[in-house]
Formats: sequence, C-alpha cells, structure tokens
Amino acid sequence: MNKKEVKKVVLAYSGGLDTSIILKWLQDEYNAEVITFTADLGQGEEVEPARQKALDMGIKPENIFILDIKEEFVKDYVFPMFRANAIYEGEYLLGTSIARPLISKKQIEIAEKMGADAVSHGATGKGNDQVRFELGYLGLNSEITVIAPWREWDLNSREKLLAYAKKNGINIDKKHFDENGNPAVSPYSMDANLLHISYEGLVLEDPAKQPDENMWLWTNSLEEAPNEAEYITISYKNGDPYAINGEELSPATLLKKLNDYGNKHGIGRIDIVENRYVGMKARGCYETPGGTIMLKAHRAIESITLDREAAHLKDELMPRYAKLIYNGYWFSPERQMLQAAIDETQKKVEGTVKLKLYKGNVVVVGRESEKSLFSEAHSTFEEDEVYNQKDAEGFIKLNALRFIIAGQTQNK
Amino acid sequence: MNKKEVKKVVLAYSGGLDTSIILKWLQDEYNAEVITFTADLGQGEEVEPARQKALDMGIKPENIFILDIKEEFVKDYVFPMFRANAIYEGEYLLGTSIARPLISKKQIEIAEKMGADAVSHGATGKGNDQVRFELGYLGLNSEITVIAPWREWDLNSREKLLAYAKKNGINIDKKHFDENGNPAVSPYSMDANLLHISYEGLVLEDPAKQPDENMWLWTNSLEEAPNEAEYITISYKNGDPYAINGEELSPATLLKKLNDYGNKHGIGRIDIVENRYVGMKARGCYETPGGTIMLKAHRAIESITLDREAAHLKDELMPRYAKLIYNGYWFSPERQMLQAAIDETQKKVEGTVKLKLYKGNVVVVGRESEKSLFSEAHSTFEEDEVYNQKDAEGFIKLNALRFIIAGQTQNK
Amino acid sequence: MNKKEVKKVVLAYSGGLDTSIILKWLQDEYNAEVITFTADLGQGEEVEPARQKALDMGIKPENIFILDIKEEFVKDYVFPMFRANAIYEGEYLLGTSIARPLISKKQIEIAEKMGADAVSHGATGKGNDQVRFELGYLGLNSEITVIAPWREWDLNSREKLLAYAKKNGINIDKKHFDENGNPAVSPYSMDANLLHISYEGLVLEDPAKQPDENMWLWTNSLEEAPNEAEYITISYKNGDPYAINGEELSPATLLKKLNDYGNKHGIGRIDIVENRYVGMKARGCYETPGGTIMLKAHRAIESITLDREAAHLKDELMPRYAKLIYNGYWFSPERQMLQAAIDETQKKVEGTVKLKLYKGNVVVVGRESEKSLFSEAHSTFEEDEVYNQKDAEGFIKLNALRFIIAGQTQNK
Amino acid sequence: MNKKEVKKVVLAYSGGLDTSIILKWLQDEYNAEVITFTADLGQGEEVEPARQKALDMGIKPENIFILDIKEEFVKDYVFPMFRANAIYEGEYLLGTSIARPLISKKQIEIAEKMGADAVSHGATGKGNDQVRFELGYLGLNSEITVIAPWREWDLNSREKLLAYAKKNGINIDKKHFDENGNPAVSPYSMDANLLHISYEGLVLEDPAKQPDENMWLWTNSLEEAPNEAEYITISYKNGDPYAINGEELSPATLLKKLNDYGNKHGIGRIDIVENRYVGMKARGCYETPGGTIMLKAHRAIESITLDREAAHLKDELMPRYAKLIYNGYWFSPERQMLQAAIDETQKKVEGTVKLKLYKGNVVVVGRESEKSLFSEAHSTFEEDEVYNQKDAEGFIKLNALRFIIAGQTQNK
Repeated sequence: MNKKEVKKVVLAYSGGLDTSIILKWLQDEYNAEVITFTADLGQGEEVEPARQKALDMGIKPENIFILDIKEEFVKDYVFPMFRANAIYEGEYLLGTSIARPLISKKQIEIAEKMGADAVSHGATGKGNDQVRFELGYLGLNSEITVIAPWREWDLNSREKLLAYAKKNGINIDKKHFDENGNPAVSPYSMDANLLHISYEGLVLEDPAKQPDENMWLWTNSLEEAPNEAEYITISYKNGDPYAINGEELSPATLLKKLNDYGNKHGIGRIDIVENRYVGMKARGCYETPGGTIMLKAHRAIESITLDREAAHLKDELMPRYAKLIYNGYWFSPERQMLQAAIDETQKKVEGTVKLKLYKGNVVVVGRESEKSLFSEAHSTFEEDEVYNQKDAEGFIKLNALRFIIAGQTQNK
Repeated sequence: MNKKEVKKVVLAYSGGLDTSIILKWLQDEYNAEVITFTADLGQGEEVEPARQKALDMGIKPENIFILDIKEEFVKDYVFPMFRANAIYEGEYLLGTSIARPLISKKQIEIAEKMGADAVSHGATGKGNDQVRFELGYLGLNSEITVIAPWREWDLNSREKLLAYAKKNGINIDKKHFDENGNPAVSPYSMDANLLHISYEGLVLEDPAKQPDENMWLWTNSLEEAPNEAEYITISYKNGDPYAINGEELSPATLLKKLNDYGNKHGIGRIDIVENRYVGMKARGCYETPGGTIMLKAHRAIESITLDREAAHLKDELMPRYAKLIYNGYWFSPERQMLQAAIDETQKKVEGTVKLKLYKGNVVVVGRESEKSLFSEAHSTFEEDEVYNQKDAEGFIKLNALRFIIAGQTQNK
Repeated sequence: MNKKEVKKVVLAYSGGLDTSIILKWLQDEYNAEVITFTADLGQGEEVEPARQKALDMGIKPENIFILDIKEEFVKDYVFPMFRANAIYEGEYLLGTSIARPLISKKQIEIAEKMGADAVSHGATGKGNDQVRFELGYLGLNSEITVIAPWREWDLNSREKLLAYAKKNGINIDKKHFDENGNPAVSPYSMDANLLHISYEGLVLEDPAKQPDENMWLWTNSLEEAPNEAEYITISYKNGDPYAINGEELSPATLLKKLNDYGNKHGIGRIDIVENRYVGMKARGCYETPGGTIMLKAHRAIESITLDREAAHLKDELMPRYAKLIYNGYWFSPERQMLQAAIDETQKKVEGTVKLKLYKGNVVVVGRESEKSLFSEAHSTFEEDEVYNQKDAEGFIKLNALRFIIAGQTQNK
Repeated sequence: MNKKEVKKVVLAYSGGLDTSIILKWLQDEYNAEVITFTADLGQGEEVEPARQKALDMGIKPENIFILDIKEEFVKDYVFPMFRANAIYEGEYLLGTSIARPLISKKQIEIAEKMGADAVSHGATGKGNDQVRFELGYLGLNSEITVIAPWREWDLNSREKLLAYAKKNGINIDKKHFDENGNPAVSPYSMDANLLHISYEGLVLEDPAKQPDENMWLWTNSLEEAPNEAEYITISYKNGDPYAINGEELSPATLLKKLNDYGNKHGIGRIDIVENRYVGMKARGCYETPGGTIMLKAHRAIESITLDREAAHLKDELMPRYAKLIYNGYWFSPERQMLQAAIDETQKKVEGTVKLKLYKGNVVVVGRESEKSLFSEAHSTFEEDEVYNQKDAEGFIKLNALRFIIAGQTQNK
C-alpha cells in the first residue's frame, strides 16, 4: 500500500511511550508536521508533562494542544448517555466508548483550525477504539486522512517497539523493562477517564480465572470497604444530576465526588466477557464507581417521574442505543434520533434520590419529586375517588377479547 | 349487574381468612358448588391445613385439590423466563407475575375435569394479579365464567370482612386482631413462591421512606450477612441451570438451594416504584435471592457461548417479553413468539459459572464451557493467524462510507 | 350507574340525526347546557347548516362553534404522521385515526374557554373512535367528565332512535326511511375528512365478499380511470410537501389537490380486515387518494436524502408509531418520543419527486434534491477514487469473524 | 498480497463470459483444479450449455455440477421469507438477496463432497452480492478459502476483460461487441431467478431519469396489460401457498404460475434508490411479479387468521429481518431467531384468498378460512351476546389512568 501524502497530522498524544513512538514514526514515515493533542478527561494523570515530551521530540510550541475537557465530557457525553440508562450487554457502562467521540471531535477541531490534513491515534487493530476514533473523524470530516500506525507498521512486538524507541532516542521510562532489563510486559492494557478505568488483555485472557485483587486501582475491595453504610442524596433536573447532599456541583465535580463515594464503598467493579464490534469476544474488567451510583439513582428518579410507556419505550430502545455508542456511532444520525427521543422524556425527570452505599451495594432508600407521578390516592388498596375497581372488569374483558374470540373460532 | 348463573366454581384457595370469606361468599351469593384449589408453589407455608378448613366449610372431599406444583413452576415457567434474562423496568424479576399463569392453568384444568363452569380468585381490583389470573383463564378457556369477588362485593374494609366472617362462622385467626380486639391492619400485602416474596401496600406507600428492616422475611440484611465470602458454581445446559457445585438437582430443588445461599448472603432485595398495568405507579419490595443469582449466572454463561447478534437481539426483545409477563400475557401468541426466538438461542448455552457471594453481591469469578466462543487466539493483542489487522481498515472504511458520502454531498 | 352531574357539555356535533338525538338526550338526561362543536375537516359536507339545527334545538348562539380546522389538521397532524411513513397493519393509512385527536383537542379548548365540565361524542361502544376521543380528552384535561351516550342509553336500534327523535320533535331527513316508511338501514357506516373516507359495517361484514362498486364515493374505479397517464411533481422541505408541479400550496390545499389527482386515477382504495384496539377484527374499506400518493412520494424523496440507518430505524419504529395513532395515543408521551426521533431525521428531506399516475398506480419516475446522498461516483460499477474495492474484503472478514470463530470453536 | 495456496476451488459458474474468464483466471493464477457449479434457479436461461463450455475449458466431467434447485429455492428460502412479509426499505422484495445463500450452501456442499479447499464467485467489489456469498460460505464452513476475483485482479474494464478472454481462447459471444467491433457496454447489470429479475448500473445511475420501457424484460407495461381484469385464488397452509384456483402445485411451479399472471397484468415492477450494505446508495429496478402477488395474498390470509399482537410484533420485527436477508445474514443465529418467532405464528395461517389482477394492481376481493378469527358476531355494530359495550368504559378508563394521574399530579 502506498502511503497517502499528508502534510500535517493531529495525533492523540498521551505523552507515554507508545504515542511517543507513533509521534516519531509519523515524522519519519510520513515526513509530516505533527500536532499533538493531549486531553485531560479525568484519567488521573498529569497531562502537562506531555508538553515537554512533545517539545523534546521537536514539536513546535504552537503545535502542542493540552486541553482540560472534563466538563464538556461529563456534560455533553456522559450525562446524555446516562439519561438513556445505557448498559451494553447487561453489564458494561461504556466508560471507554463514550470518551472516544469527544477526543475525535477535538482532533478534528484542531485539524480544521490548524489546517491539518490528517489525524492519527494509538489504538490497535484488534480493538473497538480504532473504530470509535475513525468513525468519529470521518463522521465529522469526510476529507480527513486517517493514520492508524498499529495497522500499518511492523512494530508488532514489545521488542521491536523498544528497539525503535532506542534507535530514535525516545526517552523510555524504567517501568518498560523488567528487573533483567528485558522488555516488561504490562499485565493489562488500561484506559481511564472520569467515568471509569478499564483493564484488558494478557493475564485476563482466561475467562475462567479471577483477576488479581491488586489489578483494581480505584475501588476498595468489598472486604476492605467500610463496615458502616453511608447515605447520600443526588438531585436531578431534566434527567441530569446537579447536586449531592444538596450541594450544587458542576458536572465533572459531581462525577468526581460520586467516584470518591463509590471507590470508598467498593462500588462499580465489573468483570465480563463482551462482544467486540470487530468480531471476537474479549474479557474486560472495569471500575465505574460514580457511574454505577448514577445509573441506580437515575432509574429511581425516573421511577416516580416518568410515564410508564415512555419508560418502557426507553428500555426497549436502550440496548440499541448502547450498542451504537459501544460501536462508535456517537455522531451518527441514528444515535441522534434516539437521543432526541430520550431527551424528549427527561423534561420532568427531577427530584432527589436518597441512597445507601455499603460494600458494593447501592440501595435506593428514598425518592422525592415535585413532579412525582406517584399518587398515594391511587396506589392504595382502599377504595378511592378516582379509581373505580369495576373499571378493571372492562379493561380485562377487552384485553382478553382476542383470546375469547380465538377460543370461540380458531381454537374451537 | 345481574350475577351470571354458575353451577360449579374452582376457587384459588389459600386457606387464609380472605379466601375463606370468598369461599363462603361464593356459596351464598352464587349458590354454587365450590371446588378449592390450593397450590404449593414453594411459598413456605404448609398447604395441607387448607384441606381441613375447606372441609369445615362444607366442601366435599372430592372437591378439594391440593397440589405440589413446584417442579412444574420452576421448570416450565421460571426457567424459560430466565432464559430471556427478563427484568421489568430495570429492576423487578417478576416473581409474582410468573406464578399467576400456572395457577390459572391448574384452575382451568380442574374446572374442565370436574365440569365446573366458573373460576374465582382473591386478587383485588386495583392490582395486576386480577389481570394475570383472568387473562390466563380466558386465554385457556374462552367459555369459563370468571368471578372476582373483590370487584363485586361491598366488603371493602377490614371491619366489614371480619364482620362477615364472624357472622358466617368462619374461623378467624388471632393475628387478625390487635391487642385491643380491633381489626388488625396487616402492614404489608405479601405474596410468596419459590422465586420470591413480595411486600406491597400501606406503610410502603411513601416512596421517600425506607421500609423497616423487619419487613424483610427471607434475606439477611447486608450488615448481618456473613463477613466471609462463599463460592459456588452453577452448571447450565440448554440455557437452564441443572447443578450446583457439581451436584445435579431438580429445578425446584436447585432454586431452593440458591435461595438458601442468597438469603444467607443478603442477596436479592429490591425496593422500587413500578408501573402497574392498570395504570398507576405502586411501591413494591421484593426478595428474589436465588433468582438474582441465576440472572447473573445466566448472563455469564451466555457471555461465552452466545453469538453477539443473538445476544443483542435478545436484549432488545427482553423488555417487551418482561412486560408481557408482568401484564399477564404468558399464554398469548406474542409471548410464545418471543419464547420461540429466545429458546432458539439457548441450544449451546452450557457450561459452568463460578460465583462469589458476599454481602448482597453476586460476583462472577469464572466461566467455562465446552461450547465457548471465547477464543484466546482472537482476543489477544498479539498478531494472530486468523485475524488480519489490516482487515479492520476496510471494515471501518465501509462502515464510515455513508458518513463520508454525506460529507461530500449533503453536508458540503 | 348514577349519572355524574354535569353543568355544561361540549358535544362533537355533525348536525346529522344521531348527534342531534345525542344533543337532545344530553339536555334531557343530564339537564345540561349543551355547547355544539362542528368541525370542517374537509369531509366534503357543508358545516354551516349545523348552526341552524343547533339553534332549532335551543342551543344559544354563543354556544355554537363551527370551525374550519382543515389547515391545522393537515399541517399538525397529517404531515407529521406522513413523515413517519405510517401504515397500520401493512395497509391502512390511518385517515380516521389521525382526525380524532384534533377534534378532542378542540372540544377541550372550547370546554376550557366556556367553563364546561363535560364533553361528549357520538362514537359507538364497539369501535376505536370512542377510545381515540376519550384518550384525547383525558390526555389533555384529566378533570373533564366524558359522556358516551352510545354506551349509556338504551336506544340500541334504529327503531328506538327514530322513535326517540320523533317523540322529541327532532327533524328527521327522508333518507332515514325506506320506501315503505320503515327505518332505513344505511348499508355502511362512513367517516370522511380531507385525508380519507371510510366504510364499515353491515354488508361488509363478510370478508369473503367484495363490496359493491357503488360503495366507493370518491375514486374512479380502476376500469373507469383515464386510459392516459398523468405526470406530476411534488416538492418537499423538512419532510413535508409544499408544492405540486412547482406551485406552492398550503397544506390543506395541497392535500385537496392530490385527492383530485388520486380520485381521477383510481388511486388509494383499500379493502382490509383490521384488528381493532377493543379486541375484534373488523372489515374496513377506505379511500385515501392523496395520502397514497404522498406516502409513495415521501419514501422516494427520503430514498435519496435520508441516511441508511436513520431510514432503517424509522422503518423499525413505524409499526409502533402507527399503532399508537390507531389506538388513540396521539397525545401520549410515547408518541411524542417517537415523533421527536422522526422529526430529527427530516431536516434534509427535501427535493422534488416526479410521479406517474395511472389506473391505481403511483409510479415514481424521478427524484432530485440539492441534499441528495446519491453519489453516482460511488454507485457506479467502475473503479472510483473514493471506494477501494479491497476494503470490501476487510469489511466482509470482520463481519464474518463471529461465524468463523464459531466454526472453529463451538461448532467444531 | 500473497495469494493463498488452494488446490481445488468450487466456482459459481453461469457459463457466461465473465465467469468463464474467472474460471480461466483461477486455473492460471491459483494453479487450481476448478469445479464448476451451475444452478437452475429459474432464471429462464438454459443451464445445460454450461457443461460443454466447462468441458471446453478443461474441466473434468466429474467436476461439473449442474443442479436444478428451483424447488429447494422456493420452498426453503422464498416461502419462509414471505411468511415474514419481508420488504426492504418499504419497497424491495429481496429477489436477489434470497438466492445468494442457497448458491453459497450448494458450493460449500460440493466443496465438502469433493474435498475442495476454496470457493469463488463472480460478484464485484462494490455490491452486496459479494457480502451475501461470502457470509454464506464462512457461516457454513469457517475453514474455506474465499476467492473474489473482482477484488483481486486488474481486469477492471471491459477492454481488459475481452483482451484476456481473447488471449486465453475463451469463446466470446457476439453480443459482447457493438456493430463496430468494439467492446459492447451492456446497459444494465441483470440478475434473475424464479422470484425476480433485477437491473442495475450505468444508464440507471441518474435517479431523476426513468428507465427505458424496453429495459423491462418480464412484465407487460401497465398500458399494454390487458384491459380486462383476471381473478385468481391462492390457498395457504401453515403460512405457505400451495394451490392456485384450487389446483395444488409444487412451490416452484406455483411461483412460476404466479409470475405468468403477474407478467401478463403488469404487476411487480419497482424502481428505487436503495441503501447498499457496503455503504452507498444505488438505483435498482426490479420485476417481482409473483412475489408481489404473494405478499398481498399472504397479508390478506393473515388478516383473518393471525392474532393482532402476533401480527403487530411480526410487523415490528420485519424490517430487521428484511435487512438481515438484504445484508447476507441468512445463516446467522439472529435470522434463525427471528424465523423461529415468525414460523411460530404461521401454524393456523391457512385458507383461501381471492385476488383481482388488473393493470399493475393486485386487489384482494375475498378471504376465507376455517381458522378465521373474524367473528361477524363481534364486529357488527349491533349489541351482541359476547361484547358488553359497557366494558369499553373500564377499558378506556384504565388505559387513560396514567394521563389522568399525570394531569392531577405532574402537570397540575
């Protein structure tokens, strides 16, 4: 395959070894001017050091973009997704999936601003992330050239990568070597942002085996979580949380705080075998402490404020919505269609949910709303003014009519 | 409304006060011969005492039916439902809903055998159960007359009921009076079977308030559950569990054993506001210990044995399937359609899941199957024989093509 | 049943015999002040004569409302529905169903303006229309009292109705008697508005028999339709038609003109057995000339301007959307959810469709749009710049991967 | 790309120029033993001449397979699909899509029987058929090597193809040259089988232009169709047609006969812009005379024999089912799931439909069934024994209850 000629390329750059190698490789193989984009999505690592690393590799200062996009991430990506109660395959809260489109969007914005004709990412050729990045790029800019080094180069082992780095004078952190100076094999592939941290690969690749306890970086284990429960309230407006224990918080601050609660109480670990869009099953372990709390709380506030049939239709559409996000179709017309339907239902989803947090459990212990549809007058067993029990007879009769007719005709 | 004339009526009879009053009322108001049907569904109460009570009220011995239908219940109702991973409104495992059709079916079978022309139940006029019973009756026998005393009579308070019972010489247990001899108001309306126990009504009718800890009859509280985790395995064949820790068990025995595990470890309590089919929201608290374990285990065994798209289609159809069961449509053509689709997928859902049970948590710690679709060769990050990373490029390109074309035409 | 006391009632009044009897009956039975509402929905009959009839029956002039709501009907009800390509049960274009909510809305508006506490309609107790009217009323005003005379009174034969009319001095048109002076049985029950005319009942009640040719009031028969085809264009913007043959027309005028074309060319007759919401199957014959043309044209303009997956999702949601309208849930949250999703897709559905009309056929012979997604460059068989045929290999490979893995593992 | 080594390859061979060139190319490029498979799917051309052509190109007699698979095609592919009332994008009856899986299956069967390690087809790299063939191959045999010459070779123009043929002594029919001896460009790409004939490409690639009347090979034009209507009956059992005008016919014979009727009366032409799975929109013209009649007839027999909710669920699942077939997923687990659901509903879909055929129109004029669910007693407007009009009140009240409660709480 002949390489396409590109002049400027915007690279999603973490500052780590792999994306540093990609940076160098883009300079060498494509002879391209590289623009680095480093995002603070709340992954918990400093992003500023990436600047010096980029400078060290010859990137012009004006070509280095380091952005804190945590608030945008939570407000415009995480919250809309949680309005849908999205879960992929019954378990996964889509923590990685939902971050990719925003990174794509920022790269494209930078590319358009800087006159770049290409974008590049560090996702491998067997995962979902390459798809998510690239559908994002192409969904937003159909002319952009996409460079996916992992699918192009032949640096397909740790040895070759380290050799390439060494040869090109790339600074290699000690952690990349074991005690014997051989290339260290990281036991997991990890990804983190404000919503979650994920673990994949290598030692997880036997679904019969439990991961080591020390793999989990964020949450306390169930056993180590406090022996005393903690109670919190979350307040909602238009389907989005805006306050914890009565204190109004910005989206990212709120999620950060929920993460703290969740981490303390061992909430939000999952360990699953999931179906990748590229066709194989894969083991994934995830910690989504705040998200796990939010899902429970959102369902609870919906339970008293959302119309029955709207709620059911949301539930029926949800798996498809979650799949679209998992597969990378955030910017697609069909995701936007579903979002329009979902958002239409959230106008009166407001009020406060009280939760008990205890050793991995998120227990709803109260819900209140000025827009509540729960009517004690109607749900009571006593006779009431509004509900005439005799109406139930007609209701059942007409709902059963097709069975009655079938019994008297077809099944006679 | 003129009462329809009926000669023989099959009553779903628990032996308790309310259905005893109904029994008497049917004899008096309809002048009908009453046949009692008492089912052992694993509710945990003796059913045999119902015989003497029925005899005491003048029921002929040959008109008393007391049946242990636990195995049929679990095998033909609970297990098929769990193949679908059915959950109503994101939370409820349908423990009451799934028992009603079987009771209906037995009543109709007895009616047909005994030449009865009517059936009757003790469900009230504001709940879902009346619908479930009656859609069951009419779905199976379109000619049967249905008598729903709670919608017909004027005994609409505890006082009136107790007075009626007293007047008619019905034996009233002490528990129906408080210390002052006044009618005792039971704080909850309960229903139990092998799958769950439910609590509704009265003191629960404020969704802002947590129920008393002593309401919960089956499970340990999270705090009281053991401080040590327990590990079990569940083995599956054709989507149904058949062994625990390697020991093969009949369906009802297996579910009973899972309940024991769940109760011990505080598993399976839920407290929700749900949407009733008859139109109002209602608070319900449920304990489904074994079911909660089964749901998790079934999803785990499916995660390694079920095709991706079959799994996703199941997830999309599930809310509708669950709603059909909740609403009482077990015997409907549409539930059978969905069941056919679901069962089609379960032929190779087999293998063993290992679970950790601990303080309300059911944690999947291992899955194994001879029919596993998990292929380490494919999921590894390393280059492999089968998967050519370059294929991903074409895959992404063609999936993005509609966006690219839109960018070059419509959105230009 | 005790009648609820009402003071003022807004009656959907056509001016015909049946609603005149209802008017009188409301005055007598409810002792209520009656407000009449007569709507011009394009049914093709004069509405003004209803004024004198109402006055003759003692209605105060200020209590008589005669409104031309054709434009609102087409713009806010018919067009949104056609954006969805809505068809009920594969055949029915919902001509009656879509008119009912607007009538309900107008009655409620008048009731609120005039301080009325009740509304009433002339639909029978076995049809869908009672449900549509009443769900409309109650969806818009939960306090309103609904009076459905056909379910209340005992005037359940033509004889009794005519006797009642005679006794109460209601003017009875000659057409209500046969040549012998006996009550005439109208062979069909009809309903018309700008979208369609419907025929139900009596002589149609054998689905094995074809209706008489003279039943059809609007369209030419296929045989009598012109032997020469006619070509027209329809232009769209935001998914709605706005011009015919280049001439911009208001919504109602446009639909009227399409009806003229359709009637001339024998377009839009259907004869079906449909499933009523109240439980039975019913035979219905319908003429929807303009609607049949619009459906074809809308699909054609969508075919070049709508994204594939948005189009497919619309198709999947359509049957549910159509069912909601058929069943009377226009004002429900779930219909609004679906509408939001549908409308989201129509922003670029614009352009012009050319149609050939000939003997019942609507043939699309051309589509053009400035927002077309059809790209000759891409659809051609020739090699092109954009589409690399080798990409198809990766696309197929990854889509097949789950089958390949299954072949190598589960199905080995 | 290095060519994979293969020993024996089963080629889907029509005997025409293109597949003859492929045959030769496989021999030369892969040095492989070629097995030819020629199927009679009712395309209307002799298949036997393919034998001599294959022999002429050096194929061993025992390596030549010519099979009449018309009955299998109609019985196991066409009929199951019509049980679903499958239509792609509102218009297309999937005539090409449904034939591909059977061809794939036969090729794999022959490959397994003959010990071949590869299969090959003549579909191009921009269409859907390559996907359908290859998903079929790989769905049935995960080890097979797939050779798609159009994606591999550089014979990407008519000139090169003809030159290659000439050079290799392949017999070239005169029709491949124009009057000047230059390569003739066929104006359309066509595909035919018993269900339909399709036209794509070249002169159709402007969706604003109507195709020439002489493109259509099967059906009379509307204008040329007889001026007199013809009436036929089709009889169904288990959802499949088995007799025309009372005469029992094998599946293929029945479809052939319906094609004759349809062709005569100008039935079943469509002209659409469709969305290909590989990402672009494409113009397609199709004639599906018998299929168009079958679709109408099947819906009509279902209208009196199928339960409402089963029918509606079928309608909701249909677009997805159709899409699966269009995209080539016939052998997938998800198509089998849907088929199981669909087939479950067809057990009592039996009876006879009477149709009027006239100038492109298929008009249902009667339906009869011993399993009819149509009950005149219920659908009549008169009061009846079974249906109590007062039941409608309770039915409406409880269906409206959520609106009433919302009005009294949330929307107060």
